[in-house]
Amino acid sequence: MIQKPYLLFLGDAPDPLAAKVAQGIRDWRPDNAVGQFRLPGCKADLGLPDMDLAEARAAGAKTLVIGVANRGGVISQSWKKVLVGALEEGFDLASGLHNLLRDEPDLVAVAEATGRSLHDVRVPDVDYPIANGKKRTGKRCLAVGTDCSVGKMYTALAMDREMKARSLKSSFRATGQTGILITGSGVPLDAVIADFMAGAVEWLTPDNDPDHWDHIEGQGSLFHVSYSGVTMALIHGGQPDAMILCHEPTRPHMRGLPDYALPSLEDLRDTALHLARVANPACRVVGISVNTANMGEDEAPAYLAEVEGRMGLPAVDPFRYGAGRLVDALLAS
Amino acid sequence: MIQKPYLLFLGDAPDPLAAKVAQGIRDWRPDNAVGQFRLPGCKADLGLPDMDLAEARAAGAKTLVIGVANRGGVISQSWKKVLVGALEEGFDLASGLHNLLRDEPDLVAVAEATGRSLHDVRVPDVDYPIANGKKRTGKRCLAVGTDCSVGKMYTALAMDREMKARSLKSSFRATGQTGILITGSGVPLDAVIADFMAGAVEWLTPDNDPDHWDHIEGQGSLFHVSYSGVTMALIHGGQPDAMILCHEPTRPHMRGLPDYALPSLEDLRDTALHLARVANPACRVVGISVNTANMGEDEAPAYLAEVEGRMGLPAVDPFRYGAGRLVDALLAS
Repeated sequence: MIQKPYLLFLGDAPDPLAAKVAQGIRDWRPDNAVGQFRLPGCKADLGLPDMDLAEARAAGAKTLVIGVANRGGVISQSWKKVLVGALEEGFDLASGLHNLLRDEPDLVAVAEATGRSLHDVRVPDVDYPIANGKKRTGKRCLAVGTDCSVGKMYTALAMDREMKARSLKSSFRATGQTGILITGSGVPLDAVIADFMAGAVEWLTPDNDPDHWDHIEGQGSLFHVSYSGVTMALIHGGQPDAMILCHEPTRPHMRGLPDYALPSLEDLRDTALHLARVANPACRVVGISVNTANMGEDEAPAYLAEVEGRMGLPAVDPFRYGAGRLVDALLAS
Repeated sequence: MIQKPYLLFLGDAPDPLAAKVAQGIRDWRPDNAVGQFRLPGCKADLGLPDMDLAEARAAGAKTLVIGVANRGGVISQSWKKVLVGALEEGFDLASGLHNLLRDEPDLVAVAEATGRSLHDVRVPDVDYPIANGKKRTGKRCLAVGTDCSVGKMYTALAMDREMKARSLKSSFRATGQTGILITGSGVPLDAVIADFMAGAVEWLTPDNDPDHWDHIEGQGSLFHVSYSGVTMALIHGGQPDAMILCHEPTRPHMRGLPDYALPSLEDLRDTALHLARVANPACRVVGISVNTANMGEDEAPAYLAEVEGRMGLPAVDPFRYGAGRLVDALLAS
């Protein structure tokens, strides 16, 4: 568990997209971010107060989160001075970069000397069990996609926010680096050893109150040949009561696989549901989340209406129009 | 790649079953085993010549394979003297135990001093790529099961042997510890990191002659919630042209999961085929391999005939009756 709140380190981000992890924290857990730290030349701005390390400590920040990705995922030397200074100032460090904090001898030495923690959320720090398949109390909703990167994390976060706004019991369960940094905990599922994937998902979504919903961040797609095993483990380890189908309608082919077409929403529904019912015979598909970012003001509602009529399920873009109807459908299921 | 041939170490095996890895090598690659090494009290006997280390070296053995599992998978002190002696005698060591050879400081020290290799086949020693899904030349056949441990490895080995007996181009591709020790190479898929599972299977089954068949050892089951992600990665990474359904008809529930019933063969066929066709639209199910070990002399043929009639596919027990009809079906497909 990463100590909150955070100071968000944007470094020398060459553009706003490079700071998308920090933006995710800013968007989804604004209470977790007391300020931003930018180096000269930084082209990202979250609209948070710019703070130096001492100011952020005074404002209560406990962890400096590297909220920026640079080319190659490495920890640049220009960042090192700030990171070392942060440890000396009393901050823990958290990072989702490929280049691990723990592989930097200077950071390790200072962290040990100061008694601070280095959180590399890209690699697991738990010995997960093998899945036992036992039925757990509480409810779980899993976002599944026609492809990778179609908005599964966003959908789960939006539904969690909507339920919390209605004072309902809800948790977002992160399964990727960005989600873990946003919420401070989770399982970096793509880095878990094969035999323990489903067990890690069981561990992440334990017994809970009967009226509590876990919103599980999806990964990959059953139809994406590079990552479908990870998706499969989420479906069986998560034993979802409900699934949301996630889709991006303008994509010409599966992400990174030019020879592979996207499946239809009907195929995703039938395939995912059949497999999910192995673990939970009561599982249902309750709604469709469409990423309409590449569709115009007229085009998006028309497409959503067409999908809704065809599938007989609410079809919404939660980013554009809110997650209310998806939550309504979840609660009605 | 483990150097062959082997001296098979049976240690102080308390019963024949404890030496099942050695038995597998003896059954499937008899040319790889020059002899067996037994400690006092050993209750297993492969029918191979008993040899000491010097005799085995003289007979050409290059690797001492730990072909026995003891309780807890640990390397017992009573074995250590033999293992150290083997390294000093010029043998490499190979093991599939949980307790890794490389975690034993005395073995590491002697191996370094003597220039010998320690092969822990339970853990990967390759940085596998992420799967790219590109179509490969050559043919691949994957064994998929209604459950774990229903005979998938045996089926693939039997088909490989039958094709070799007919002078056809064929390779057995091991994906588990026993298979790797039998053939000397492979991928320990259950120990691979999630993101690289399908890529590891692509790596294992590369481009080949158009008339060459890889017989890929299956793992887990799409219907076994603990391990289905591993099975999924085999189906997409292997991009099989053909699949064999494997089944054990007397099992009361999924292995280790008392609350889970086995799927029907029809369900396995339809589910596996639909997912396999994402990677290879030409994939077909060509036959059924039934483990009839728990069925009587009359019961087994009656059951096979019933399944064959119902499924419209050859249904055989390759251990009991040979793999000829499965290979016939494969070649006809």
